[in-house]
Amino acid sequence: MAEKETPPIILQFAPLNSSVDEGFWHSFSSLKLDKLGIDDSPISITGFSGPCSHPQVSNHLTLLSESLPLDEESLIGSTSHGNRNKCPVPGILYNTNTVESFNKLDKQSLLKAEAKKIWEDIQSGKALEDSSVLSRFLVISFADLKKWSFRYWFAFPALVLDPPVSLIELKPASEYFSSEEAESVSAACNDWRDSDLTTDVPFFLVSVSSDSKASIRHLKDWEACQGDHQKLLFGFYDPCHLPSNPGWPLRNYLALIRSRWNLETVWFFCYRESRGFADLNLSLVGQASVTLSSGESAETVPNSVGWELNKGKRVPRSISLANSMDPTRLAVSAVDLNLKLMRWRALPSLNLNVLSSVKCLLLGAGTLGCQVARTLMGWGIRNITFVDYGKVAMSNPVRQSLYTFEDCVGRGEFKAVAAVKSLKQIFPAMETSGVVMAIPMPGHPISSQEEDSVLGDCKRLSDLIESHDAVFLLTDTRESRWLPSLLCANANKIAINAALGFDSYMVMRHGAGPTSLSDDMQNLDINKTNTQRLGCYFCNDVVAPQDSMTDRTLDQQCTVTRPGLAPIAGALAVELLVGVLQHPLGINAKGDNSSLSNTGNNDDSPLGILPHQIRGSVSQFSQITLLGQASNSCTACSETVISEYRKRGNSFILEAINHPTYLEDLTGLTELKKAANSFNLDWEDDDTDDDDVAVDL
Amino acid sequence: MAEKETPPIILQFAPLNSSVDEGFWHSFSSLKLDKLGIDDSPISITGFSGPCSHPQVSNHLTLLSESLPLDEESLIGSTSHGNRNKCPVPGILYNTNTVESFNKLDKQSLLKAEAKKIWEDIQSGKALEDSSVLSRFLVISFADLKKWSFRYWFAFPALVLDPPVSLIELKPASEYFSSEEAESVSAACNDWRDSDLTTDVPFFLVSVSSDSKASIRHLKDWEACQGDHQKLLFGFYDPCHLPSNPGWPLRNYLALIRSRWNLETVWFFCYRESRGFADLNLSLVGQASVTLSSGESAETVPNSVGWELNKGKRVPRSISLANSMDPTRLAVSAVDLNLKLMRWRALPSLNLNVLSSVKCLLLGAGTLGCQVARTLMGWGIRNITFVDYGKVAMSNPVRQSLYTFEDCVGRGEFKAVAAVKSLKQIFPAMETSGVVMAIPMPGHPISSQEEDSVLGDCKRLSDLIESHDAVFLLTDTRESRWLPSLLCANANKIAINAALGFDSYMVMRHGAGPTSLSDDMQNLDINKTNTQRLGCYFCNDVVAPQDSMTDRTLDQQCTVTRPGLAPIAGALAVELLVGVLQHPLGINAKGDNSSLSNTGNNDDSPLGILPHQIRGSVSQFSQITLLGQASNSCTACSETVISEYRKRGNSFILEAINHPTYLEDLTGLTELKKAANSFNLDWEDDDTDDDDVAVDL
Ligand SMILES: [Zn+2]
Ligand SMILES: [Zn+2]
Repeated sequence: MAEKETPPIILQFAPLNSSVDEGFWHSFSSLKLDKLGIDDSPISITGFSGPCSHPQVSNHLTLLSESLPLDEESLIGSTSHGNRNKCPVPGILYNTNTVESFNKLDKQSLLKAEAKKIWEDIQSGKALEDSSVLSRFLVISFADLKKWSFRYWFAFPALVLDPPVSLIELKPASEYFSSEEAESVSAACNDWRDSDLTTDVPFFLVSVSSDSKASIRHLKDWEACQGDHQKLLFGFYDPCHLPSNPGWPLRNYLALIRSRWNLETVWFFCYRESRGFADLNLSLVGQASVTLSSGESAETVPNSVGWELNKGKRVPRSISLANSMDPTRLAVSAVDLNLKLMRWRALPSLNLNVLSSVKCLLLGAGTLGCQVARTLMGWGIRNITFVDYGKVAMSNPVRQSLYTFEDCVGRGEFKAVAAVKSLKQIFPAMETSGVVMAIPMPGHPISSQEEDSVLGDCKRLSDLIESHDAVFLLTDTRESRWLPSLLCANANKIAINAALGFDSYMVMRHGAGPTSLSDDMQNLDINKTNTQRLGCYFCNDVVAPQDSMTDRTLDQQCTVTRPGLAPIAGALAVELLVGVLQHPLGINAKGDNSSLSNTGNNDDSPLGILPHQIRGSVSQFSQITLLGQASNSCTACSETVISEYRKRGNSFILEAINHPTYLEDLTGLTELKKAANSFNLDWEDDDTDDDDVAVDL
Repeated sequence: MAEKETPPIILQFAPLNSSVDEGFWHSFSSLKLDKLGIDDSPISITGFSGPCSHPQVSNHLTLLSESLPLDEESLIGSTSHGNRNKCPVPGILYNTNTVESFNKLDKQSLLKAEAKKIWEDIQSGKALEDSSVLSRFLVISFADLKKWSFRYWFAFPALVLDPPVSLIELKPASEYFSSEEAESVSAACNDWRDSDLTTDVPFFLVSVSSDSKASIRHLKDWEACQGDHQKLLFGFYDPCHLPSNPGWPLRNYLALIRSRWNLETVWFFCYRESRGFADLNLSLVGQASVTLSSGESAETVPNSVGWELNKGKRVPRSISLANSMDPTRLAVSAVDLNLKLMRWRALPSLNLNVLSSVKCLLLGAGTLGCQVARTLMGWGIRNITFVDYGKVAMSNPVRQSLYTFEDCVGRGEFKAVAAVKSLKQIFPAMETSGVVMAIPMPGHPISSQEEDSVLGDCKRLSDLIESHDAVFLLTDTRESRWLPSLLCANANKIAINAALGFDSYMVMRHGAGPTSLSDDMQNLDINKTNTQRLGCYFCNDVVAPQDSMTDRTLDQQCTVTRPGLAPIAGALAVELLVGVLQHPLGINAKGDNSSLSNTGNNDDSPLGILPHQIRGSVSQFSQITLLGQASNSCTACSETVISEYRKRGNSFILEAINHPTYLEDLTGLTELKKAANSFNLDWEDDDTDDDDVAVDL
């Protein structure tokens, strides 16, 4: 039988298999969301491979979390350093932003491009210096980050040898080598694998001298190995376990050998292991006949093959991580993704971290409070505290979007409690709490027994304002906004104010506190640009806030507004806060207005203009921006009031609460009032009547 | 013992007790909400009383549902007709709108005013004709319709006799009358009570002739009864059961007797019953000595007393019906109340019935759909149908206000299903349903296998539009608005359209359909005012709607808008619908704009102007109204398209879906497009570029 002439057998290579760890997709998702955005340039990644180490299982080419570049500079570049079981393989990832783009990718061209790199590395000699470049790979993918599902397709480009390589013989290495040789080869391989310098070098030479001593050499030493050996084999880490076939890396290896040294027959050594040591029973040795085609030249890149099959078919693979992820984490990442999409597309300079870390205090959890909280969540704000004294009433849920019928059956849940519950139900990652508390009001005299409790509330409110970054004034009376306005001016906190008439609304941001200039003496820019502070809600007044609630009729007790108002004003209030947070000057930003939109400091903010006040009417479907400076006789934010509060503390507050005229006397409003008693003080009109205070621009 | 002189005993009267049936408060609440509003004028009511009919229990003065006037004309006026156990007593109700007003009522004056009426009726002789006016009563109340609690206080005005009446003797009637007399008195009383004419006449004369025959006579017959009787007693239906005292009605009776006939001693008969028949053992007969004070005159109204005590104290009573009411009914009434309050205070001409009966179809249940549904609920709209094909995704709840985290865990609930569930949780009285369906789109070709299903969807959509009154177009693609726009124009249904850019919004109402003029030939007014129809969403286009979704990148697939936009646009869309519904011309109302607000037809609508389009920008915090007429080459609402649709039906639709240029060819847009290919078609800009189509006013 051995003598019988057999037709040449075409050498068949066992294809590589890919394996992608979920950690890779998680890391890639982060990279995409945090750095790449919609940039779909190809990125360099590193696959990991190694010699087969099990008689029944081939070793895969694996993508792990660390397959991705560590930092932005290395997106196109070097290969990660590996270890004995994770020999790095250079790869490239083409990720598309749509499934249509994925399907439209020209796979043949992409494969050809990678094959060309291999061919060029062979021709240039680079493959001799760094043999890992012989086993490049390529992945195309579409990452649906909304659904956490990934479609992908690997290619392991292999240069097609023409004519094909024929196999002369193939046998276990233990049969090829003498036992003495085998022992020496094993020892040399184990040394090669144990050395940090060579453990991940997958292509090498095995030379066995006539005295059966084996040594492993780098490919570049081929010339040096000529002559003095009995046997010289081309070894490589073979991921394949099959006894009948060498693995895929041999293809490009043979292309190198043929092109570089023009050999006619090649002895190759498929190195395989067991339990971390060379196993010459699993390892193969073969002899192949390699013929150089007549037309081949260095300039012509050979054809290439290598797209991985999926269960025998030419289709991509896909994986969904959604089911294996914690639902809350999924929600967090989905919400984050939406915000990042907004940034990628429209607001590259948007600072999302400022939004996710800001702490908002909402005074009032009614129609406005509910809408403000919802819009804050839409912007990615995570930390919301509600202050409200009321309970959810039967008429609330149809207008107050955080409550349901269930919250008002029986005696009704406190709004501050129900709102917190609702936010958690909407988005479990919210950090939110509720404080059931009435806000002390000037002009609502209290008895001496009540003093401790009211002063306690003042302290709580002051502490809450100190511990938050932005305060929304959303209560339904004018006078309940006074103390928070004062405390925000005192603490120099951002205050956003929204108030509703029947069919008109006002949304404004308060200016910095009167002491903010001295506090920030270092910041010369602010001193320069901000010689005058913006006004607060009370700056336009010529009367101090007083009791407006007692003896109101049924209809007045109810906040009678057109249902469309609160969503509009609440949403605008949040957009205004976001504008302040994104503005380089923050609370000190001067007030813009629509008509100056082509000049001024609008370019500073990616969000557009940052007005001081917005007033609108649903009966006219109109909206305007206004600007008003801080008043020296303001009962809430003037230096007189703030310094009196700092000096006298509780006794100042009690006097304001118990004596309706105290604030007016203190600030000189009493005098102003006498001079101005013909003014129309309804804010819906005062933009026309009160030009020197609120300026209609 | 009998001979011994005893000091005069002051006659003591047992006070009346009030009893108010819950039905009275329910009826009064309805009256208040439906008719009275905040009008707090006193209203005439009728109490019901009758003779005591139980040895241990006095009869109360009772208010029942029928105590209230039946119609508006009788708010001040006549007394209800009663029966034997419900003898009508005229009363007056002072209901206040606040608890403070209730507390501030001048109870002494009110009582005096009622006492004066009694005194005047005595003086004028009216009390002889209609003796029921001797027992007037008075109620003050504060109805807190938000909490369904009622505070009230009865007064039974009694004229104070000065000097007081002294009692000479008082005994059971069975002891006063001989048994023969007693039998005859009983029979006569039973006859009086059995006659429809006299059963509810509570004051009467009992005359017993010398032959022991008794007869009951009207008070006005007193003169006629003189002389021919052995005994003449003043009888009355006594609600009191006590054997020791007559009941309260005797007080004013004695005032009448004293003033009218100037008697010194009076025999009175306290008529009481058992099981519907006169019971002379319970009934009392007494003799009183009545002295006319020297200063008394007809002009001087005697002092009066009569405020009812509550468990011995001078405090009002209160009752809460909330606990006994079905919570859903409470919610319904609370929501109704809020709307009525709005009407009372600000919009007297607002037609709430139009709102509560209108059926709204919402195409799209995303950010806009959720906000629109919520604002509709705020306006009292009860009937909402959602159409949406999508499921709730993890990123939705923070922006789509009808969904929670729970709706998106696992595979996610269909939005159309989750939205319905949410509406019911907010307000159980909602009539709402959801349809999971994609809207067929032009330029999205389908295979022949899909035809049946797509045409089925067209039919369903058409049926849905036919069965609703107003359609909201809230989907997130342009082309999905085409078929609904066409179907609304065809069916002449109100269509409200809202669309979002990244930081700008557009809200508009479509004009009437092209065939509306011929359909409404009778209505000359419309023909006159509406020579040109308002445009639809597609009227400005020079391209037909086409596939805009395929191959959009990740960020484009996501509706990337600033989070404040949807609340604003959704709320404006609903305010616009409400304006149309309240406008006398409805869908045919011409488009107003802000700058003409002082002229034009704005006075027609209590809500303000009714624009055609509203466009706004959150980056500029600005908002304007626009007006655009219908275009003859519109791909959705032109007569060409509608008549082609009516003629060809399904084949028309299939052609539009499968052939991107069909609609343009049909309407002549292809030609127009050639002429206009330099236009900027992005709607955010076309108010400046496209002046002849969309006119910026
Ligand atoms: Zn101020
Ligand atoms: Zn049109």
